[in-house]
Amino acid sequence: MGEVEERLRQLGLEVPDLVAPVGSYVPALRQGDLVFTSGQLPMVSGALLQTGKVGAAGDIGVSAEDAKALARTCALNAIAAVKSVIGDLDKVTRVVKVVGFVACDPAFTGQPGVINGASELLGAAFGDAGVHARSAVGVAALPLDAPVEVEIIVAVRD
Amino acid sequence: MGEVEERLRQLGLEVPDLVAPVGSYVPALRQGDLVFTSGQLPMVSGALLQTGKVGAAGDIGVSAEDAKALARTCALNAIAAVKSVIGDLDKVTRVVKVVGFVACDPAFTGQPGVINGASELLGAAFGDAGVHARSAVGVAALPLDAPVEVEIIVAVRD
Amino acid sequence: MGEVEERLRQLGLEVPDLVAPVGSYVPALRQGDLVFTSGQLPMVSGALLQTGKVGAAGDIGVSAEDAKALARTCALNAIAAVKSVIGDLDKVTRVVKVVGFVACDPAFTGQPGVINGASELLGAAFGDAGVHARSAVGVAALPLDAPVEVEIIVAVRD
Repeated sequence: MGEVEERLRQLGLEVPDLVAPVGSYVPALRQGDLVFTSGQLPMVSGALLQTGKVGAAGDIGVSAEDAKALARTCALNAIAAVKSVIGDLDKVTRVVKVVGFVACDPAFTGQPGVINGASELLGAAFGDAGVHARSAVGVAALPLDAPVEVEIIVAVRD
Repeated sequence: MGEVEERLRQLGLEVPDLVAPVGSYVPALRQGDLVFTSGQLPMVSGALLQTGKVGAAGDIGVSAEDAKALARTCALNAIAAVKSVIGDLDKVTRVVKVVGFVACDPAFTGQPGVINGASELLGAAFGDAGVHARSAVGVAALPLDAPVEVEIIVAVRD
Repeated sequence: MGEVEERLRQLGLEVPDLVAPVGSYVPALRQGDLVFTSGQLPMVSGALLQTGKVGAAGDIGVSAEDAKALARTCALNAIAAVKSVIGDLDKVTRVVKVVGFVACDPAFTGQPGVINGASELLGAAFGDAGVHARSAVGVAALPLDAPVEVEIIVAVRD
């Protein structure tokens, strides 16, 4: 087991099975020294952990705290997508960019706190190499009614 | 005519005229071995094919099926934008990344099916090189009230 | 003072202090010959210039004209983020990509005009090298209730 997977193990996590794309594309691909992942949803074993909109009232509402945990799951799925392309996660030299989309009520403005769930996991997994540039935005809706979607770009070595 | 344009011709399609940007930017540019396109709208001959929000009620509503066809037009315009930079589309070695934005009602969660319209066209045009990483998100509104916007990154050779 | 900063000075602008990230990430980073910035908000001296949604009615409404000025401030902060990584802005060989997010009412469709505030500033600062590919989208909400968020990718030389 490499260092990155060992760090995840110490957090009680393991790299999950790859999430099958819900469309005509692949979970990730390598181009030169970059790996681009597809947008990752908070799926475990093929099912979304939760659906709805962050900050909305009523049954469809998802709390910011729950959404942060979902962003962490998105990031774990992004790590799995990267692993599917490069095999050994210790080949990641830098997490370059993270874009986090939060399906939310227009009045919800805590997107950074939600996406910190992804950023913090990437920091824990990759150490200094896990510190990245990032955008967080609040959107109207996400695939399958997911509350969060995260895509990443990482740099890799051979 | 190159292979890519021949494949499009067999689908009854041709690479359209370039869509003029609606702002202070260019349709696409090359940096190293990557070509980045601007976000492409479902325009034909300078006019949007349709306006509105996917899944909304009333006059502004656009069906998911119509939106999928619009995403295909966005992808065709993205191909035109790439061609404007590299000339010969057979120089595309890989479609690297697609981001698809769907202007929709917050209750609409079928973004992947809509953006498949773009992904499937790219697969048909570029074959194995057309299989990409992708994100699909649902947004509040798009330029000129377009229901769909698609941007792509492709890798190219000289 | 380099050429880029001199051009900004002639517009009555200077590269501002770096805006501290509101999450677990960095304002920008370099990977190979590209610098990726995080999403930049219209902050000056640590505070948002304005909050709300573009085109919305009532107290939360922000005009398209005000939003265009905010997009310009976002771009100036993006330039500061790039400078924090490469030191001398004259090392920028090309602004490659701009993505502009506009927090807006679903009925607002003037995102290109808003994001022109960023594109025009980049053109003024970098000249021919400032002409970029771009996507502009309208979203439900942005961090801290910012009306606009802009991220950029630039190419740099040593």
